Amino acid sequence: MITSVRNPRIADVTRLKRSRERRATGRTTIDGPFLLQEAVRNSVVVREVFALPDDTVTAEVARSEGLELVEVSPDVLTRLASSVNPRGPVAVVDIPPPAELSTGDAIVLWEISDPGNAGTIIRTAAAFGFQVVASSETVDLWSPKVLRAGVGGHFRTRIVTGVDHIEDLDRVGLVPLAMATGGIAIDKVDMSDPTPVAFIVGNEAHGLPSGLRDGATAVSLPMPGGTESLNAGVAASIAMFLRMTRRR
Amino acid sequence: MITSVRNPRIADVTRLKRSRERRATGRTTIDGPFLLQEAVRNSVVVREVFALPDDTVTAEVARSEGLELVEVSPDVLTRLASSVNPRGPVAVVDIPPPAELSTGDAIVLWEISDPGNAGTIIRTAAAFGFQVVASSETVDLWSPKVLRAGVGGHFRTRIVTGVDHIEDLDRVGLVPLAMATGGIAIDKVDMSDPTPVAFIVGNEAHGLPSGLRDGATAVSLPMPGGTESLNAGVAASIAMFLRMTRRR
Repeated sequence: MITSVRNPRIADVTRLKRSRERRATGRTTIDGPFLLQEAVRNSVVVREVFALPDDTVTAEVARSEGLELVEVSPDVLTRLASSVNPRGPVAVVDIPPPAELSTGDAIVLWEISDPGNAGTIIRTAAAFGFQVVASSETVDLWSPKVLRAGVGGHFRTRIVTGVDHIEDLDRVGLVPLAMATGGIAIDKVDMSDPTPVAFIVGNEAHGLPSGLRDGATAVSLPMPGGTESLNAGVAASIAMFLRMTRRR
Repeated sequence: MITSVRNPRIADVTRLKRSRERRATGRTTIDGPFLLQEAVRNSVVVREVFALPDDTVTAEVARSEGLELVEVSPDVLTRLASSVNPRGPVAVVDIPPPAELSTGDAIVLWEISDPGNAGTIIRTAAAFGFQVVASSETVDLWSPKVLRAGVGGHFRTRIVTGVDHIEDLDRVGLVPLAMATGGIAIDKVDMSDPTPVAFIVGNEAHGLPSGLRDGATAVSLPMPGGTESLNAGVAASIAMFLRMTRRR
């Protein structure tokens, strides 16, 4: 059992908390039994699994799936995990190869900075059948916090990164719809048209750059008061729900 | 300027991080310039404001509104705040008196435990014109973290706490709709009926107790895959959006 947070193997995994290290190695970490189960179920490559010695559930998963299991002390597990009071396991997995933009409904994260919002959007996209597209300035979608909020959606939906031009959406035939204030009320937009759409959600504080808004149709969520705002994950999710129910 | 985190006045405010202390004093803390502005705008009683000496914006707000301003060092501000890198201010405010359940559309938080989810639901409720109702086992809606995720919605919507029986909803004429798997697809429910509804959202991990589900009509968000789940704040927000657009 590893009991020292200074153990070199533990130090290697801890470095995956940095996005640069994740990019360099092509690996990330996932927290908890549910994400491990989802990773295995979706054929994600699991490199190693760190768990407490009394974690018999994880030991059984590791045995039946042929995964390398490393027993660690609670201190070490806390160091590896992205949550505050982990009960484990923490696993190192390969980040799946980046997908290409396809001709299907998309949600586009444009400089989204909050890991919880990004993960929530991925979770909803997986539930409602949307591909997830992110600009280069968006938070790293493969960070442990985004994975946690994604609750497995990462492994079941197409994730496309590094899309920084609205023309990239046009090229595969997506109709760009910018979620912004002062646009067309979204419940008045014809969502039954079979042409795929790309809802674009901007940064939580700054919204969308004007150049991007010019190239897209602005759509808004109607609010009776008019002075309110919505959480970015909520706004994106409502848009996806409307499209999903109307395209059926 | 207060520079010691052991200063008794700072210790008093720090104790408000505990829900028991908030209940005993009837006070809580809010973080950041936006929440302070919203509190002032909505006539919330602001007891004292802690800010860095170079925070001229907060100094001007305090001067024009006649608020007591206390200058503190960055260390002290960090101790008072609920965020990791606060730039301030942190203000002590009176928790508004609890509201009574009224005959209008409601979102009911049943043992919701995540502060971010609770705050997101309050933010959406304020935007879409819903009263917010919470069971006793729900996270304290007046915690600094819930207030932060609420982005001012707390001060602009009716908040009712301590509702632990479905009969309480019946009594004021609300139709209880339990958000659960295996219910009627929510987009098939007649949402244009003028009778007010109460959407009930259960605990993130355990859902709704069976006794509660028996007394309500179960409604579900349709998902093409069927095996997915949604974030509780997202599910509640989609339900509120549908009702809001159809009752107009």
